[in-house]
Amino acid sequence: MKKLKTRTHCPISFGLDFFGDKWSFLIIRDLAFKGKNFYNDFLDGGEGISTNILSDRLKQLELIGIITSEKIKQKQLRKKYTLTEKGKDLIPILIEYIVWSFKYDPETEAGEDFVNQAINDRASLLKGILDSLE
Amino acid sequence: MKKLKTRTHCPISFGLDFFGDKWSFLIIRDLAFKGKNFYNDFLDGGEGISTNILSDRLKQLELIGIITSEKIKQKQLRKKYTLTEKGKDLIPILIEYIVWSFKYDPETEAGEDFVNQAINDRASLLKGILDSLE
Repeated sequence: MKKLKTRTHCPISFGLDFFGDKWSFLIIRDLAFKGKNFYNDFLDGGEGISTNILSDRLKQLELIGIITSEKIKQKQLRKKYTLTEKGKDLIPILIEYIVWSFKYDPETEAGEDFVNQAINDRASLLKGILDSLE
Repeated sequence: MKKLKTRTHCPISFGLDFFGDKWSFLIIRDLAFKGKNFYNDFLDGGEGISTNILSDRLKQLELIGIITSEKIKQKQLRKKYTLTEKGKDLIPILIEYIVWSFKYDPETEAGEDFVNQAINDRASLLKGILDSLE
C-alpha cells in the first residue's frame, strides 16, 4: 500500500489528504450504501462524474487501501470493487454527513428513520450497514 | 444566507458541496479545536494555506452560514470568526475523521484519550468541545 505524503499528522488533515475530494467520497458512498460495485454503476451515480475522474479516483482509492478489486467473470470479465476494512471504517464519517445534511438541507433525500437511528442507536445502524456489505 | 446549488440532494453529496475542500475543513478544525478565531491564526495553521485561499474560504463559509464574524477592537480593529450552530454541527464529522486517522496514521497527532472518549462516550466529548466554544 502506498504511503501517502501528508502535510501534517493532524488527524483531520490526514483524513482529508486521503479522500478530501468529493468524487472519492461519492464512490465510497456508492459502495457503502447503494450496493454498487462496478465501474458503470459509479458512472451512473447521479452527480455526473466523468470517466477520467472516475478511473483516476478508483485507482487512487485502491492504491491507498480504501478499496480493493477483483476480476469476476459474468457475461464478460469485469472488475468488482469493494471496501476494505480501512474503507469501511470511513462509514461513520458518511453517517455524520447524512445527519448534518438531514438537518440543513430542506430537500434532503436522507431518510428520517436512518437519521433517528444514527442519533439514537449508532452501533446497530453501523452493524446493519456492515452486515449488508458481507 | 446563500442557498447553495447542489448537484443532488443526496445527503452526502450535499455535505460535500458545502465544505468539500480541505481548506474549509481545516479552518473549521482551527475554530472547533484550536481556539483560533482570527485571520492570522488560520494563516499560521501548519498546512501552509495561502492568503487568497484563506480569504476566499472565510467568505464562502460565512456566506453559507457555517461561520459568522464580528469586528472587535483590540489594539486594532479585527474580525473575530466563530462557528454558527450549523458550523458546530459539523464537529461530529471532524471527530470521526480523528478516530479514523488515529487508527490508520502511525504518526498521528491525535490523542488516545480523545479517541477513546469518542468511541466510548461521544456525547460527553461533544458537550465538552461545545462548552469550550462558549
